[in-house]
Amino acid sequence: MKNLEVCLTPALLPLFNIEGSIVVVIDIFRATSSICYGIENGAEAIIPVAEVAECAAYREKGLDYLLAAERDGKVVDGFDFGNSPFSYTAEKVSGKTVVLTTTNGTHALHMSIKAKRIVIGSFLNLTSLCNWLKQQPENILLVCAGWKNNFNLEDTLFAGAVAEQLKADAYKWDDATIAANDLYQLAQHDLNVYLKKSSHGERMKQLGIMEDIDFCLNVDITTAIPVLEGEKLVKLH
Amino acid sequence: MKNLEVCLTPALLPLFNIEGSIVVVIDIFRATSSICYGIENGAEAIIPVAEVAECAAYREKGLDYLLAAERDGKVVDGFDFGNSPFSYTAEKVSGKTVVLTTTNGTHALHMSIKAKRIVIGSFLNLTSLCNWLKQQPENILLVCAGWKNNFNLEDTLFAGAVAEQLKADAYKWDDATIAANDLYQLAQHDLNVYLKKSSHGERMKQLGIMEDIDFCLNVDITTAIPVLEGEKLVKLH
Repeated sequence: MKNLEVCLTPALLPLFNIEGSIVVVIDIFRATSSICYGIENGAEAIIPVAEVAECAAYREKGLDYLLAAERDGKVVDGFDFGNSPFSYTAEKVSGKTVVLTTTNGTHALHMSIKAKRIVIGSFLNLTSLCNWLKQQPENILLVCAGWKNNFNLEDTLFAGAVAEQLKADAYKWDDATIAANDLYQLAQHDLNVYLKKSSHGERMKQLGIMEDIDFCLNVDITTAIPVLEGEKLVKLH
Repeated sequence: MKNLEVCLTPALLPLFNIEGSIVVVIDIFRATSSICYGIENGAEAIIPVAEVAECAAYREKGLDYLLAAERDGKVVDGFDFGNSPFSYTAEKVSGKTVVLTTTNGTHALHMSIKAKRIVIGSFLNLTSLCNWLKQQPENILLVCAGWKNNFNLEDTLFAGAVAEQLKADAYKWDDATIAANDLYQLAQHDLNVYLKKSSHGERMKQLGIMEDIDFCLNVDITTAIPVLEGEKLVKLH
């Protein structure tokens, strides 16, 4: 029987068999939502990098890349944009390559680098992602980016939403998957209301990016599945 | 406002301000349940040690100590007993000092050593513990021992049960506390049924210690609060 496991924060990744799994990286507010939206909107590629300096270094390369850097929820000074989904519209990213570094999402991605395959999940592409996952013979590991290596609710809820769609299939769930799915069942009828009580919701409100939050909780408005090929996230074909 | 935080596994402890908090160590199956039971039943002290060798070393000291060692759910060969609560009856431990090492619980305890104060929680002493916690001016950090540094359901549910009792008081909850409390609310009417689906329940069934599980889910059958003083867990006065 295949495993379906949830890694609640990147700090716990050393406990999992990454090599034998398909990893879904989850950073709902906002990196993976924006990546899904950007790839859907025709971005040629999104290159996730760990450090702001690494992102800035692309400026020297003389390429026509968009540079995006976020730290602590804000666009880093001197960059084109951060990780607001509204920066990833077709108008802005179609045909372009974006270099992106974020507080949590790109960290989780780099920590998962040994996976058989890394794909990107968000509520935006939920059902499309799950339909693809069901067809894969490998174990599945859902990696929540969390907040600075700690647990957060929104990424866990999304892991629970994936588990919900894979329920009819024969996976062996670990405790974190059971918990994530139970929390999702509680929250699913109004994710936004449920998340209002979360720490991140509070943080977002203070940052004045409530519209971003609302957008990131749209379910199934995209179908593209971003997949890591080499150093680039591209559309899965 | 005071913080009420849940550390879902010892691997996440570096993320918390341990020094400024009262830490409650939680290892429901079975270390902290057995410690609560042993102290209630008149054990003079329980000395938690990290390693089996450390526990064995007490044999050389010529003291009248009981030596208890558990690894992977089983009593280690050559030891008086492990961490089954039925080894901690008044008949066996009254007036005695027990030296104890376990897979998860003693690890979590040693990782928390810098706390302002370390107390031991389990369903057995839930209300007594919470009544005492409410009177403390410090932040509270509930540390789930988990299973080999990963998340587990039973310790998380207990953290949620503590949160439930502290709800009327003004604490600031982190996301993990919210999640733990929501899961507890789902499970509270029959903890045993809820935990049957957990990985640890499965593990325990295979080890043939279902009676231990049932016992560890008894709520409020003791009132003693074990507290760490120096290297010893003793009854809080």
